[in-house]
Amino acid sequence: MSVHADHPADHPADPPAASVPAAPLTAQDRVAGYADRLARLAGQAAVIGVDAILISPGPDLEYFLGHSVGSHERLTCLVVPPNGQISLLVPTLERPGWSATPVESLPVAISTWTDGEDPYAALAAVLPAGATTLAVDYHMPSVHALNTRTIVPGSELTLAGEAIAELRMRKGPDEVAALAAAGAAIDRVQRRIGEWLRAGRTENDVAADIAAAIVAEGHARPDFVIVGSGPNGASPHHEASDRVIEPGDPVVIDIGGPMPSGYYSDCTRTYVVDGGPGAETDPRVREVYEVVRRAQAAGVAAVRPGVSAESVDRAARQVIEDAGYGRYFITRTGHGIGLEVHEHPYMVAGNTTPLEPGMAFSVEPGIYLPGEFGVRIEDIVVVGDAGPVLMNTAPTELTVVGADR
Amino acid sequence: MSVHADHPADHPADPPAASVPAAPLTAQDRVAGYADRLARLAGQAAVIGVDAILISPGPDLEYFLGHSVGSHERLTCLVVPPNGQISLLVPTLERPGWSATPVESLPVAISTWTDGEDPYAALAAVLPAGATTLAVDYHMPSVHALNTRTIVPGSELTLAGEAIAELRMRKGPDEVAALAAAGAAIDRVQRRIGEWLRAGRTENDVAADIAAAIVAEGHARPDFVIVGSGPNGASPHHEASDRVIEPGDPVVIDIGGPMPSGYYSDCTRTYVVDGGPGAETDPRVREVYEVVRRAQAAGVAAVRPGVSAESVDRAARQVIEDAGYGRYFITRTGHGIGLEVHEHPYMVAGNTTPLEPGMAFSVEPGIYLPGEFGVRIEDIVVVGDAGPVLMNTAPTELTVVGADR
Repeated sequence: MSVHADHPADHPADPPAASVPAAPLTAQDRVAGYADRLARLAGQAAVIGVDAILISPGPDLEYFLGHSVGSHERLTCLVVPPNGQISLLVPTLERPGWSATPVESLPVAISTWTDGEDPYAALAAVLPAGATTLAVDYHMPSVHALNTRTIVPGSELTLAGEAIAELRMRKGPDEVAALAAAGAAIDRVQRRIGEWLRAGRTENDVAADIAAAIVAEGHARPDFVIVGSGPNGASPHHEASDRVIEPGDPVVIDIGGPMPSGYYSDCTRTYVVDGGPGAETDPRVREVYEVVRRAQAAGVAAVRPGVSAESVDRAARQVIEDAGYGRYFITRTGHGIGLEVHEHPYMVAGNTTPLEPGMAFSVEPGIYLPGEFGVRIEDIVVVGDAGPVLMNTAPTELTVVGADR
Repeated sequence: MSVHADHPADHPADPPAASVPAAPLTAQDRVAGYADRLARLAGQAAVIGVDAILISPGPDLEYFLGHSVGSHERLTCLVVPPNGQISLLVPTLERPGWSATPVESLPVAISTWTDGEDPYAALAAVLPAGATTLAVDYHMPSVHALNTRTIVPGSELTLAGEAIAELRMRKGPDEVAALAAAGAAIDRVQRRIGEWLRAGRTENDVAADIAAAIVAEGHARPDFVIVGSGPNGASPHHEASDRVIEPGDPVVIDIGGPMPSGYYSDCTRTYVVDGGPGAETDPRVREVYEVVRRAQAAGVAAVRPGVSAESVDRAARQVIEDAGYGRYFITRTGHGIGLEVHEHPYMVAGNTTPLEPGMAFSVEPGIYLPGEFGVRIEDIVVVGDAGPVLMNTAPTELTVVGADR
């Protein structure tokens, strides 16, 4: 991986993007990889001192088994004790959905329960004998987590989320390659924004075109398409509306989704819509934009092994505070990314987790001026051996789009 | 509502569909409706004896506030005590997303927490003084449910799901109208299946056309498109694959999604693909089809106020058992439907819940012959004052599609 740890904050040139070869793994390699992950998860059950870790359908199951199906109301549960048999309990009618997936080649005993039976009794049958302490993944719906107490009365239920994040948050080479491919795909969409974004169109119209392009450029589906024009950009999680975009508007475009690999893209650029013949970009927009651009570059430049997650937040925030806009930066600086668009580690005050090679997250400071406009710039960064490796390379220079042709 | 409680099981004529006028509610009516739901939820908190019911983003929040936004990792929580102030805690950056929604006209105090602060401390600040017992909705991710214990140490966390289902499972007239509109929309798609389903196409190709039609006929999005041809139909939750559909295949088409109202459609028909010039439908397929058709009609005919949910399952299952196929009916007979595609009440052995007017659920028996084929027929039914009211009217007679034209 390329290493560029020392960009001065006032020189926000992009580090070159990762170019990890994405050689497809053989089926055998993939199974070996999942077996290794399961073994490490069993190790985590020992570390946190529980009789079993329980995992429900979602990104955690996908990470450990390479596959996840399940409805919220019928219990599907992976049971991982510190030692001994790993089990997967699935509803009978969903059993065929697990055929020809890696689990059939893994050291996992698959058992089923049928509609009309008690799924928690079926779960009890695959728990280690005498189990009394259970830890559940972050996503498990409360209905299942709390109902496990019917089978292990008096037990203390705990969260396995952090123990799982310990494994998921350091990405292996195949995962970095998947994130690089996702970044390249969303960058292609960002480079095409000028095809769709112009005055007179609604945010919804622009968002529909972008959503189609997200798929056309290789994603499995669009997951979020934020088109925040003018004052709507001041709400970080505004999506898109029927607001008609006006000449001169700054527009926040924050887009992404999962690739067929399951790994997510997430990239934000803020554009300015052409103001008409002879119009100049509003100097206040330009000033705010350059502050955010410098803050984002400073956040990226702060990334290296051994520094804390919160120090990345601090580096970006300092630039915005120094420019007098601190109270308008109302979010954390970033979030981890992988099989989920938001996962550990979070770049936020109070998170002292030391960064390690392979950790992947967004760096996305912004300035949000209520009633006026917002500016946000976001790249996905992987921690390299000595500094940041960017997954996104779409230009961050202020770009004016939508001039009459 | 029309009432047709006494169809003999061997005469599966469809009861007429509901024709509830879907007069749009005024904004004021809508707010009054949500206020009433919140008041009844507070009543449920008293009934189950907790200091507060906590509700996270999802269908429950949608039901009580007419709006739901939120990411899984940032806490958004509605706090409903038996008496006193109802509160909604949201992340600061998502606060604008609640503007101009019903909550701003409801007796709900909105408070915020900002990235870097402890959301559970913010939650503690809006709990009733001295609260020690909390009940959470079924969907709340375990990370939030279990972390509430950090603010109410020693408390017993319980599930509010059944208390919430008590309210949600009896649909009001506006909800029945929304389900009728959803049923009519998915019926239009089922009536068009012959446009897409024919030998030589893959299941995926057919599914893509159906997905587009689901949107074209009025849904917000497709949620599931099952195309189970030949042996794939024997897996109830098979979705779609690259299998090429063959002449004479029976094909299970189970489709639906949410309407812009938030209410779901869900309808299954099983078709037979034309077998070519002079070909007759396989007699075994025809036999199994007619058993399922009689079972489904028997299940529908069993619906009336006062009978148990499990008796609907029993009525459908009896027909299939009597025909000698009992071991191939591997699912429950039905699930409730509304703002979720699967919700209470479930038509399953062991569920003694008495049916009441306004309850809405599927009746969908099937026969699944491993390695051969499957047949399933599904309608959504609302309990009327004295019998079933069907939300679907697509024909249930065996239909052969895809003949050369």
